[in-house]
Amino acid sequence: MALKVAFLGPLASFSHQAAAESFGRLSADLQPKASFNDAFAELQEKKADYAVIPCENSTNGSVVQTLDLLADRDNLYKDVKVCGEYYLTVHHCLLARKGTYPSWADYDGSITKLYTHPQAWGQCETFLGKYFKGVERQDVSSTSKGAEIVSKESSERGGAIASRFAAEHHGTDILVENIEDRADNTTRFLILRNVLVERTAQLEFEQSNPPTEGSGLETMHKTLISFTIDHSSAGALANALLIFKNHGLNLTSINTRPSLKKPWQYIFFVECGRTLSEENKEAVNKALDDLRKVTESCRDLGTWKDQLSVEA
Amino acid sequence: MALKVAFLGPLASFSHQAAAESFGRLSADLQPKASFNDAFAELQEKKADYAVIPCENSTNGSVVQTLDLLADRDNLYKDVKVCGEYYLTVHHCLLARKGTYPSWADYDGSITKLYTHPQAWGQCETFLGKYFKGVERQDVSSTSKGAEIVSKESSERGGAIASRFAAEHHGTDILVENIEDRADNTTRFLILRNVLVERTAQLEFEQSNPPTEGSGLETMHKTLISFTIDHSSAGALANALLIFKNHGLNLTSINTRPSLKKPWQYIFFVECGRTLSEENKEAVNKALDDLRKVTESCRDLGTWKDQLSVEA
Repeated sequence: MALKVAFLGPLASFSHQAAAESFGRLSADLQPKASFNDAFAELQEKKADYAVIPCENSTNGSVVQTLDLLADRDNLYKDVKVCGEYYLTVHHCLLARKGTYPSWADYDGSITKLYTHPQAWGQCETFLGKYFKGVERQDVSSTSKGAEIVSKESSERGGAIASRFAAEHHGTDILVENIEDRADNTTRFLILRNVLVERTAQLEFEQSNPPTEGSGLETMHKTLISFTIDHSSAGALANALLIFKNHGLNLTSINTRPSLKKPWQYIFFVECGRTLSEENKEAVNKALDDLRKVTESCRDLGTWKDQLSVEA
Repeated sequence: MALKVAFLGPLASFSHQAAAESFGRLSADLQPKASFNDAFAELQEKKADYAVIPCENSTNGSVVQTLDLLADRDNLYKDVKVCGEYYLTVHHCLLARKGTYPSWADYDGSITKLYTHPQAWGQCETFLGKYFKGVERQDVSSTSKGAEIVSKESSERGGAIASRFAAEHHGTDILVENIEDRADNTTRFLILRNVLVERTAQLEFEQSNPPTEGSGLETMHKTLISFTIDHSSAGALANALLIFKNHGLNLTSINTRPSLKKPWQYIFFVECGRTLSEENKEAVNKALDDLRKVTESCRDLGTWKDQLSVEA
């Protein structure tokens, strides 16, 4: 039976692309979900084997919906853990209905309306300011939706800003590629699994670009841990963070979300890592033991191979 | 000359209310600004004496626009610092045009359309589900805007969800108060000043509810510090955080935003505090000295009296 992989929809979204690139070689069954909650629920109920969910963008920062689901304040997703990550560089293209324009070189300026997700306008300001000043802009719910609209139009001359993946999915022409302002705008996706499902325990998300032997570089394993502390106790947070250092775990990121139990109390998300996999496992377990002594609650949200460590 | 206080508009917004409650007794000139950027720019250019800006909500978490302006990546607001804070509990009311309904007890169910900011629907789900199931909802740009719309309508029977402050400002009736689901939903506002303006240096934002003598409680002073670290150096973040502990400064919150220099590198915002004001000042200065040795960049964003410490 093919692996079932849930992603944040619609079809041809950046999450779809991340899922396709992570699982493509496994001929997995990729399934769009309407919301972050739906993707987590499918995993918890074992209706999906994996879920691919955006967790952070290099320009906009953390995706709070994902943090709130990982916080799992109502204990709905207790078996869901992170098992991998995928970095997708966000490239935008200008799309038009198939056959409308021979090429960008011959473009006659006749596009009268542009479609994309509100966030994408700001990511392509230089290109739009140069070639589409004053052209009407229509917000749509996703970049993929914009591609779909222009793929189907007959009378209007519309353009969409979306990915090459969306262009291929909806069968539009690509007039110009890489129209984004920042070449390094990247979204990090988490790959999640249900830890009770045995058949997903075997799959290792290998690095796409692993360190070569003799390079002196080693693959880092990253672990995500969430915890809450007693805020009335001075130094409680510093003591909790010190535990990572004591076990040789490098802190790679910290996030906080409201606990929703009491105002101004937080759930902390700490990502940490180290390079040697066996020692790492032991260090993480020891750190978790120590954390349980100084925190109110503490949860191991999974360990996976860092996909960035070679380039870093 | 009256103090000029910029707040995030429109008129009768929650920021306006926070500004009025913080500066009301000083008969200050309160000025709405269209954006977070505008408020910061007014301060930097010394066109305003203070600015009142939301920085965190107890349910939704940090306000990233405010963190991004405090990050000040382009060095535009180098003289803007935090000098105070204000906590405003968010209470929503059901408003209607003056004189339309005698009272909620006599309400005849004739409201056909509701207006409010998109976030407020979710904050009043219980009340709306009970009394306004199926009634048309119109999103507006602010809760104050909704109050303004119903205050002026003549034919339609509309209701707005907004604060008592907005009802008083726009002259509507209040049919029901405190219709929010969570009684403790609170927004924290920062009060900012330009450190080069001498006349704003004198004003101390005293606690509204200071510790009584003999209670054993003392006022805490909080300090906000931002820094960036060398992410390629293992342990750099832990070492920076350890400095606060070494100087007896309790970490009260941590936030991160993308550095925008390189993906997956961050600007950290650490809030810390201690109770004795003179010692605190010295501890903060020593901590800053030490931080400068282990960080790439480091900035003191101000010290102020904690407005929560008594209740904590």
